[in-house]
Amino acid sequence: MMIGQGFDAHRFAPAGTGRPLWVAGLHWPVPEDADSTVAARYEGIEGDSDGDVAAHALIDALLSAAGLGDIGSLFGVGAQAHGAGMHGADMLRETVSHLRQHGFAPTSASVVIIGNRPKIGTRRAEAESALSQAIGCRVSVTATTTDHMGFTGRGEGIAAIANALVIRL
Amino acid sequence: MMIGQGFDAHRFAPAGTGRPLWVAGLHWPVPEDADSTVAARYEGIEGDSDGDVAAHALIDALLSAAGLGDIGSLFGVGAQAHGAGMHGADMLRETVSHLRQHGFAPTSASVVIIGNRPKIGTRRAEAESALSQAIGCRVSVTATTTDHMGFTGRGEGIAAIANALVIRL
Amino acid sequence: MMIGQGFDAHRFAPAGTGRPLWVAGLHWPVPEDADSTVAARYEGIEGDSDGDVAAHALIDALLSAAGLGDIGSLFGVGAQAHGAGMHGADMLRETVSHLRQHGFAPTSASVVIIGNRPKIGTRRAEAESALSQAIGCRVSVTATTTDHMGFTGRGEGIAAIANALVIRL
Repeated sequence: MMIGQGFDAHRFAPAGTGRPLWVAGLHWPVPEDADSTVAARYEGIEGDSDGDVAAHALIDALLSAAGLGDIGSLFGVGAQAHGAGMHGADMLRETVSHLRQHGFAPTSASVVIIGNRPKIGTRRAEAESALSQAIGCRVSVTATTTDHMGFTGRGEGIAAIANALVIRL
Repeated sequence: MMIGQGFDAHRFAPAGTGRPLWVAGLHWPVPEDADSTVAARYEGIEGDSDGDVAAHALIDALLSAAGLGDIGSLFGVGAQAHGAGMHGADMLRETVSHLRQHGFAPTSASVVIIGNRPKIGTRRAEAESALSQAIGCRVSVTATTTDHMGFTGRGEGIAAIANALVIRL
Repeated sequence: MMIGQGFDAHRFAPAGTGRPLWVAGLHWPVPEDADSTVAARYEGIEGDSDGDVAAHALIDALLSAAGLGDIGSLFGVGAQAHGAGMHGADMLRETVSHLRQHGFAPTSASVVIIGNRPKIGTRRAEAESALSQAIGCRVSVTATTTDHMGFTGRGEGIAAIANALVIRL
């Protein structure tokens, strides 16, 4: 049984960029009652993939546990990369397929999402289900804020810390 | 054997609020020789519980490892919540009781406390003992600063990252 | 099997201090094509050791997993400390020796390096090899940035989060 650690952070996209918000394998529409300033700021996440910090942190945790590189080496970096435009859940499926090809399988994983929005607690079961189905084992999701401190507390972006256990098949 | 990740951050309370500082299951009096500005700032921690970041991060790591939600779903959120006013060690005891009712038990756990104050190293054995007794297995406590960088380095608040292993009974 | 968590952060040294940059057991020369402002800022890392955040986070993860204190209790703190001037890889070797003397051995470990520089991905296999040789088991290394957010994103410093599994011999 081997352990892996993962971390990721992404910046919210500026207003008017039309980017959707994807976190933990789910699409999060801007809530209708959202404060307009905040809603504009978190319209979506910048980046070449869908910016799903929870999925990306889990991918690094899984690859690390198996000793198979990281998200950059598997999916590439930049707009021309293999992973560009892919959703986090699809990237997780490909990651686990890559692990299995090398004789590894995940047995459990966990991710903490750090940020003001979206309100993960309102859809935690759904998020855990989406990620667990993608990985093929139980994935737990928790969420917390940083009391208005730091880049997550100021609403500039969102971060995630993940860990995972992997066995050799 | 299943793994969980936890994270928490809390802001130090402003001077004159009279809130005590609790971290890692221990009460930390303001040291008499403390620089007055810093001491005032870290008089205590804001929030509805005792603001014990180490205990809260451990609770999320334990609940995640068992797939049983998070601190918000178990203790509620806000001044009217079940967990309002509870000490971190008592919340940890209730968390482990909740795990056992669902057929899980923790086997080891670890937490890193990130901040300028309190000086965890001066009472680390005591902190480990308090948390280990609350959980019923070994809990390790380490502490570090961020070289005056970020919200922890500026003394605005304190953070903790935890992980845990849990078995099915 | 026991789990440990580690975290460390260090500030880049100001220009002209002549400090080398060591991360993940490797020396990172300032690249010749580096932007002069950035290069000057990340000439090296402040501190009494070589400032290797990846090694230091791993040391805390290993000591935590074994319940044997932290980097400060094993190597001391400050310019007169036992660990002053030691390289991260040598500190890791001494850490594992300390674990073995107490009947523990690491079985796997993982570290995420968070920062703009150095570009870990360009030498990840080399970094993993250096750390794995120091510890005596597989160590995985991943790296990520924070999209120009926070102290790592502004290039003020570098951070690392590690976890480890340890068994009783």
